[in-house]
Amino acid sequence: MDASANQVRKHEARLRVRYAETDQMGVVYHANYLVWMEIGRVEYVRSLGVNYKDLENEGFYLSVVGTHCRYLYPARYDQEVVVETWLLNTNPRVVEFGYEIRLAESGKLLADASSKHLWLSRDWRPIRLPAEYQRILYAGTNQNVSIEI
Amino acid sequence: MDASANQVRKHEARLRVRYAETDQMGVVYHANYLVWMEIGRVEYVRSLGVNYKDLENEGFYLSVVGTHCRYLYPARYDQEVVVETWLLNTNPRVVEFGYEIRLAESGKLLADASSKHLWLSRDWRPIRLPAEYQRILYAGTNQNVSIEI
Amino acid sequence: MDASANQVRKHEARLRVRYAETDQMGVVYHANYLVWMEIGRVEYVRSLGVNYKDLENEGFYLSVVGTHCRYLYPARYDQEVVVETWLLNTNPRVVEFGYEIRLAESGKLLADASSKHLWLSRDWRPIRLPAEYQRILYAGTNQNVSIEI
Amino acid sequence: MDASANQVRKHEARLRVRYAETDQMGVVYHANYLVWMEIGRVEYVRSLGVNYKDLENEGFYLSVVGTHCRYLYPARYDQEVVVETWLLNTNPRVVEFGYEIRLAESGKLLADASSKHLWLSRDWRPIRLPAEYQRILYAGTNQNVSIEI
Repeated sequence: MDASANQVRKHEARLRVRYAETDQMGVVYHANYLVWMEIGRVEYVRSLGVNYKDLENEGFYLSVVGTHCRYLYPARYDQEVVVETWLLNTNPRVVEFGYEIRLAESGKLLADASSKHLWLSRDWRPIRLPAEYQRILYAGTNQNVSIEI
Repeated sequence: MDASANQVRKHEARLRVRYAETDQMGVVYHANYLVWMEIGRVEYVRSLGVNYKDLENEGFYLSVVGTHCRYLYPARYDQEVVVETWLLNTNPRVVEFGYEIRLAESGKLLADASSKHLWLSRDWRPIRLPAEYQRILYAGTNQNVSIEI
Repeated sequence: MDASANQVRKHEARLRVRYAETDQMGVVYHANYLVWMEIGRVEYVRSLGVNYKDLENEGFYLSVVGTHCRYLYPARYDQEVVVETWLLNTNPRVVEFGYEIRLAESGKLLADASSKHLWLSRDWRPIRLPAEYQRILYAGTNQNVSIEI
Repeated sequence: MDASANQVRKHEARLRVRYAETDQMGVVYHANYLVWMEIGRVEYVRSLGVNYKDLENEGFYLSVVGTHCRYLYPARYDQEVVVETWLLNTNPRVVEFGYEIRLAESGKLLADASSKHLWLSRDWRPIRLPAEYQRILYAGTNQNVSIEI
């Protein structure tokens, strides 16, 4: 079994800190990291050829059931930030993403984080993600992803 | 014709500046005044016995078509702020609100503002607000409100 | 030793969901819970007779080093929400808060959460909170709070 | 006198609508347009070779004294948006920017807007922007910019 088979797929999204995201301590207000994590996972999904918007239109909503973030170093106005995103855990009903947020210039780690999600239908019931979407979206995990239908 | 007939109804909503609302200049980020104006008009409507939420549930959406704000003095973290709201202009299709935003303690004027709104249906078409709602919601103007059906 | 000595002090802050806090799923966007947690701990501190603003003015900044939130049930526009806040862990350099976020009307639990904080000086170095402030702010824990100087 | 001498310099900044920016009407919450306008003017200034961050570091703060926005068509989640920014009026103490916000794909106009700003010193006093910065930043107006010292 080769190493690459075990490789976790990671995707980097890039953004620039907005003035609106700072607070009076002169750094990014901590709740905005959760907004950046959302950008990270949307771009991760896009990098697999899927628009999250289209998933919603087809009735698959990725609701947030948990977030965790460690803040290691403050981000400041106008800095370029990289959000690295990967899959931590997946099953037909649940997805968990991992994140590392870094300064683009120096690579300095600002935060590491995770978020847990439940697939919901348009009427807010927990559902299974269809197998064809599991095949696409869950491809990047290093787990033996058991695609259930 | 007595003076009170000409009196504009005003309503005061009160809020406290959140840390999240400040920016690195040490004052409230200017876009948040528009959020406060929304609180002002929702509370104005509530003071007339109407929940804006119920209006939406019945299919009357108050979309924003214009905003204007003059920033006279900065608001700071933890200050109590009063948003005074009144009706500037009304017709069956359009509502315009006026606002004065003040420090609760000193009464100092922080901003004056206005917002213009169009009544929309659930499917985003411009509609007339029904006469019974016009009677309730437009009662506080000093205009001769022409209730049209 | 009586039971009350073991009682954790809790404080309830109350707020109303803003339209700006909702997202296109029709519920409160999850990052806003972190803003509400901040309101919870600021009001907790105020209930002990201390303005967090004054702490900052004296050079004690409560930086966020970690947040954790479980989302159990969605909050919706205009609902009244109660943020119950208490101290989980304290030492001269670190404070950890616990939170339960509930609907005011039904008491339904929307989320439970925690946040971890480091006391920083104005120039961003970790510092010890002075003993007199520890006595006031850490009074509500059920731990044997070891006040160190 | 050739036409190009009268040409107003315009700059286009591009962004993608975030989920956090939507509200329960399913469109972008209107206050976020002011955040986008700020991105527009920061990128306008950057296109002239100046980082707004550096201006602040040198003690020149561009405070907001007025905003005006007309909302013509709603922006939706994940759409790419272009913020076109130009100078409306300038003098040593005041700058006014104009904006047009469009969908990247179709060019459809979402909003037109303006914002008025006062140059402030670090201690919040109105100041004149130094002549060398006026020469750089105010170059794109079609006015006879009178650079005063």
